[in-house]
Amino acid sequence: MSSNTHKEIVRIGLVQMRCEKDTATNMKAAEQGIRKAAAQGAQIICLQELFRTPYFCQTEDHAHFNQAEEIPGPSTQVMSKVASELGVVLIIPLFEKRSTGIYHNTAVVLDADGSIAGRYRKMHIPDDPGFYEKFYFTPGDTGFQTISTRFGKIGVLICWDQWFPEAARLTALSGAQILFYPTAIGYQAFDESVAEKQAQAWQTIQKAHSIANGVFTVVVNRVGQEDQLNFWGKSFVSDPFGEVLVEGSSDKPEVLTTDCDLNLIEETRQGWPFLRDRRVDSYDNLTRLFIDPNES
Amino acid sequence: MSSNTHKEIVRIGLVQMRCEKDTATNMKAAEQGIRKAAAQGAQIICLQELFRTPYFCQTEDHAHFNQAEEIPGPSTQVMSKVASELGVVLIIPLFEKRSTGIYHNTAVVLDADGSIAGRYRKMHIPDDPGFYEKFYFTPGDTGFQTISTRFGKIGVLICWDQWFPEAARLTALSGAQILFYPTAIGYQAFDESVAEKQAQAWQTIQKAHSIANGVFTVVVNRVGQEDQLNFWGKSFVSDPFGEVLVEGSSDKPEVLTTDCDLNLIEETRQGWPFLRDRRVDSYDNLTRLFIDPNES
Repeated sequence: MSSNTHKEIVRIGLVQMRCEKDTATNMKAAEQGIRKAAAQGAQIICLQELFRTPYFCQTEDHAHFNQAEEIPGPSTQVMSKVASELGVVLIIPLFEKRSTGIYHNTAVVLDADGSIAGRYRKMHIPDDPGFYEKFYFTPGDTGFQTISTRFGKIGVLICWDQWFPEAARLTALSGAQILFYPTAIGYQAFDESVAEKQAQAWQTIQKAHSIANGVFTVVVNRVGQEDQLNFWGKSFVSDPFGEVLVEGSSDKPEVLTTDCDLNLIEETRQGWPFLRDRRVDSYDNLTRLFIDPNES
Repeated sequence: MSSNTHKEIVRIGLVQMRCEKDTATNMKAAEQGIRKAAAQGAQIICLQELFRTPYFCQTEDHAHFNQAEEIPGPSTQVMSKVASELGVVLIIPLFEKRSTGIYHNTAVVLDADGSIAGRYRKMHIPDDPGFYEKFYFTPGDTGFQTISTRFGKIGVLICWDQWFPEAARLTALSGAQILFYPTAIGYQAFDESVAEKQAQAWQTIQKAHSIANGVFTVVVNRVGQEDQLNFWGKSFVSDPFGEVLVEGSSDKPEVLTTDCDLNLIEETRQGWPFLRDRRVDSYDNLTRLFIDPNES
């Protein structure tokens, strides 16, 4: 694979937090993390999924709906000012109240002038012991999209989306150079035996999204014990070749920054031209849940 | 994730070879490898891509078309006898002459009674310096399919297919429990610097197919220097969680065997129910090459 003669660097910031019960405390910590990343030169800064609160989906409780907010709303108002003051792009994951009875797990992208560049509503919603998201979140209807910002064309996907190659592919095909995955993933605190295997599989499949699509992948996960769940942190950035550029700890809040050379996308896709060779004439059945042996 | 109370074991054999110029020598080595794997209890045994010859696609030479053969034909005749004698399922990759002017890179599955259980014609065809496959092989028209055998429902994909999540997904959705990837991948002998990174990405994306789909993945690659290419071996088996069960060396011919407990598929898919949550209502654009920003 040939080397590029020029670079097109964008510096990425990741704010890996431990969430407290008090929303104002989390908002303040997030803003501090953003300021720290910006001070280190970060131009696109991503927060973790549902950063304003503890991960409330461990139980099904109607009271939690009161934490939802509209977009634009109080949080985007605060963060828009931060974005424009610092001149950075922000990815702000929120519990969105869209209408009475319609709530989404959403990420807003604020451009460097503080305007809303776009929003993504989580398309794939999990429901597992400790992750009762289907109770709270209507599956998104935004589809998979690229959002143009001052510092690059980005795609946002959220947590459970990370297990679906279709989501990464569709976002990359719409032009995204970097995929961002705000995340809240951990292991059941009483079941540490599979924790390392889970974290390994989680990193593997997201590195594979980079490889399959020739894009950068940025994952921001929370840390800390919350009730029955132990969130494993390990926020990371993968280059288009699946190499990890930076990786966070499994147990400490921290701010990570790293440079992504967007020209690597051209170089990687020329070197391994997968997008040239997709057999789109044979992919129709991807819109089926299962290809039943006795039906056709 | 709960443990199973019973197992459903199938033992897999991988024959990683170094190819000689003489076809008869390679056929003999392949048969010896199969016999060795069967003696170790293997029930489904996979050979590497185009095992009968050196990797001739390093140049575009019409003379190589004379190496192609029909299916059924001389090689399947020999291997059918081996399959029925040993009572094993064989995956036999061949250079198929389908008709005058139509050649495929094909893998035949022979059932344990020696009959042809099915065939797969490589759908994604590479064309890169040293890998001029588009000159030789018409892209397959079999689609992605599951082939039922005495020892399990299997899917076969070939080499370049391994970079396409769509191929793994469609094969798994058609019911396959194990994906087999006969392969001929190596690095340019004059460019060792990227070799390790390439091999790492290659393993990562195939482990990801296991994780995304909850299936076993079996990859069989050749070893040895042939002209400008150095084939990196490292044949391996991944379980549905992306854990490597067995891995070959990078430079020696060898026969690998490992047990796959097919009940792990049920357990893994219950634990991480990705197939439950695919957003098939939003995947239509996967049949497009690119989602152009100014068209829709």
